[in-house]
Amino acid sequence: MNYRIIRYTLGCTLYIEAFCFLIPLLCAVFNSEFQYIPHILFSIALCVLCGFLLAFKKPADKTMYAKEGFISVAMSWIIISIFGAIPFMTTGFIPNFFDALFETVSGFTTTGASILTDVEALPKCLLLWRSFSHWIGGMGVLVFLVAILPLSGGDNMHLIKAESPGPAVSKLVPKVRSTAKILYLIYIGITVTQIILLKLGGLDWFESLALSFGTAGTGGFGTRNSGIAEYSPYVQNIITIFMILFGIDFSFYYLILMRKLKSALKMEEVRGYLLIILTAIVVIMINCYGMYSNIWDNLRYTAFQVGSIITTTGYSTVDFNLWPELSKTIILILMFIGACAGSTGGGIKVSRIMIFLKGIFKEIKLAIHPRRTVKVTMNGRMIEHETVRGVNVYMAAYIVIFFVALLIISIDNFDFTTNFSAVAATLNNIGPGLNLVGPVSNFSCYSDLSTFVLTVAMLIGRLEIFPILILFSRHTWRK
Amino acid sequence: MNYRIIRYTLGCTLYIEAFCFLIPLLCAVFNSEFQYIPHILFSIALCVLCGFLLAFKKPADKTMYAKEGFISVAMSWIIISIFGAIPFMTTGFIPNFFDALFETVSGFTTTGASILTDVEALPKCLLLWRSFSHWIGGMGVLVFLVAILPLSGGDNMHLIKAESPGPAVSKLVPKVRSTAKILYLIYIGITVTQIILLKLGGLDWFESLALSFGTAGTGGFGTRNSGIAEYSPYVQNIITIFMILFGIDFSFYYLILMRKLKSALKMEEVRGYLLIILTAIVVIMINCYGMYSNIWDNLRYTAFQVGSIITTTGYSTVDFNLWPELSKTIILILMFIGACAGSTGGGIKVSRIMIFLKGIFKEIKLAIHPRRTVKVTMNGRMIEHETVRGVNVYMAAYIVIFFVALLIISIDNFDFTTNFSAVAATLNNIGPGLNLVGPVSNFSCYSDLSTFVLTVAMLIGRLEIFPILILFSRHTWRK
Repeated sequence: MNYRIIRYTLGCTLYIEAFCFLIPLLCAVFNSEFQYIPHILFSIALCVLCGFLLAFKKPADKTMYAKEGFISVAMSWIIISIFGAIPFMTTGFIPNFFDALFETVSGFTTTGASILTDVEALPKCLLLWRSFSHWIGGMGVLVFLVAILPLSGGDNMHLIKAESPGPAVSKLVPKVRSTAKILYLIYIGITVTQIILLKLGGLDWFESLALSFGTAGTGGFGTRNSGIAEYSPYVQNIITIFMILFGIDFSFYYLILMRKLKSALKMEEVRGYLLIILTAIVVIMINCYGMYSNIWDNLRYTAFQVGSIITTTGYSTVDFNLWPELSKTIILILMFIGACAGSTGGGIKVSRIMIFLKGIFKEIKLAIHPRRTVKVTMNGRMIEHETVRGVNVYMAAYIVIFFVALLIISIDNFDFTTNFSAVAATLNNIGPGLNLVGPVSNFSCYSDLSTFVLTVAMLIGRLEIFPILILFSRHTWRK
Repeated sequence: MNYRIIRYTLGCTLYIEAFCFLIPLLCAVFNSEFQYIPHILFSIALCVLCGFLLAFKKPADKTMYAKEGFISVAMSWIIISIFGAIPFMTTGFIPNFFDALFETVSGFTTTGASILTDVEALPKCLLLWRSFSHWIGGMGVLVFLVAILPLSGGDNMHLIKAESPGPAVSKLVPKVRSTAKILYLIYIGITVTQIILLKLGGLDWFESLALSFGTAGTGGFGTRNSGIAEYSPYVQNIITIFMILFGIDFSFYYLILMRKLKSALKMEEVRGYLLIILTAIVVIMINCYGMYSNIWDNLRYTAFQVGSIITTTGYSTVDFNLWPELSKTIILILMFIGACAGSTGGGIKVSRIMIFLKGIFKEIKLAIHPRRTVKVTMNGRMIEHETVRGVNVYMAAYIVIFFVALLIISIDNFDFTTNFSAVAATLNNIGPGLNLVGPVSNFSCYSDLSTFVLTVAMLIGRLEIFPILILFSRHTWRK
């Protein structure tokens, strides 16, 4: 094991985090929240100091194999979460360590679940830090690192693979570093567009930024206790559209930029994703018929909630706990499906579900014609055996982790719907669940043990299971 | 497609069903329930007539490929369920067709879920028919057919494969017919032992038979409204032990009969199964500490419920809805795990879960050492690639079917826990779920549509998905 490259990567990650703290620092300055500036400066100083201790010596051997990639990613995410929690604790807004860690992990993993009962009590700089953590976590810290730092001689693919969501990572261009750069440029471009559109809708800069960061990372942290319900229909619609846009595989936008519109429109996952959204909206609108004053309100509320849940953002404008059971079940299923691979969204991902379904059809065909060769294709190309196996193992691990987490948090003795949806909402990086952890409630009811388990579930969900499992596997550390 | 062999198989299945109706007929005679004899005779006559129409002409070509095997099994189970429902309808005890079909399918698939609110209103002959349908369905109708009829020249493995539960069917002896015979002899042997032990416990013949049939098939239909709660601790303990015995792979007993005790004790699945049972009992006993007057009552109740749920029998002596959430969640997880492959129990099966878990560990090892070859073994032998793929596809299809069923029944607008556990209880062939369909309730609350969906779920669960999917796949019927 190349411990030095892991150490170095962790150090660089802390430098990036120090840099990211400039956003809440500027926010504090502009909004005259001077009493919080020392807390942010302290966090920055700690990041820089520890970063320096870890990264002051460049490693001679920069080779990074799969193992080092997984471990670097898992440890980076744990470290940025711990350091990111510092201002919440030192300012006294979230004094309990487990709660502060939950909140920060919820930020970076773009979950958006909160243990805060009164969001509006927080100063703007801390609210913006919460939202900005979504933006950083959405595309990935190490993707950013790869984009700006020439870490090793050639291959940083292992870092990207370990951090990026989806069954298979597609390199947009042959060079990994350029791929990372393009991804971040597209990400910044769409985010800035949303900020401007929200500003035009009458929001101030602070809220435009906070909501755009929350949407872009498909996170879900807001700035008001009422979520998104109080904003104008224009703002709600803008957020709906951008949530759905950020749930699309970024290769789609790259293809459009390259003027390959035909290839872009042929992407099976994107088509599947949009089809699911459309179907869900139509069925829920029919099921909720009569609950809203007119069809446009019905459409606006339904589209918002569907877009918010399938992209695992977790914003809400109505309490879907009050919807009929069919609509609630659809919402719950959308929680698991999630967005497209290669987007900032979480969940199992549409492409995995599609590979899953195609596997079933293949099996049926094989059972009927045992001697025929049946191929499983995606976007016209055959899916590699490795990818199919990866998807299957992912699902297996997903289910096991789901039920282990469910078992542990059930010790707190809340009802099954609350527990089940709490695990679903954290493991899929959504935010709100049903009943006690529904859109108008929060996760403060759970004990420290459960809070910690759900925190781990968020990390496992964001990093798609294996980096965390590998970090804690005894095989990894055996000589 | 060899339609004739399918037709012939269906005819023979109806002959067998006519033969099985002799049990309730004899029961009616012995218990002087003369008014129901015409109804049973009518059912027998109908079975014989339709059986004759289908099977009077032996097919010249007796070859049966996988496709014919799947279709024969799926159609046989549908047909015996429809014909088995006749006496419930003609006697007027369950006049609604969907309800009667639900009850019969629940019998044959060894689910034990009921739409009856007052079981004791039924005559003994019909109660025994309900219980006996568990016994027939437990080991399988077509396994019985293969055991007694030399259907084709050589290979009936496709029928056995399609009907027997588990990821891979193990032939005990080279000849399929002998395997089927041995299985049924072991089955009869253990059932008779239980009947005698229950008779010694002071039950009358009727209850000894009914409860033994219900236990042997891991079904769960009883003869009293209170379930098993009113019976003596001796009877409850006997049922606990036999439920657990019937949940063990029958190869285990064959190995013991062949005096291969060492090989029997080395069976990984059986060890895993017993370990899960033991762990669940200990954790639930601790979690329910103080709910029962003494530790022995606690042990008796816990062991009964755990044994009943993991073997997917569904008998109950206490209402586990009143247990703390952790215990309820354990019960819910046991519902999914199910019994051993090659037993009469349902669920996903312990061996599938083990292959699943081993796949995850393999993936972790592979990620750490990409160039090493990692083997997945079971009972010391490497698991075939086909088996692993089969397990994965099974799980995929299982999940999809689970959520489709959940969606449809949620139209009835009951709460999530009820719906979720209703699908879990039927798809895993258990019987009772939680809340409205809990151990002291029944499925009568659901609409006809939901009743039908849950009926299909029971069939899909018992036949392990693919026979039913293949029957309704357009690829099957395409020229």
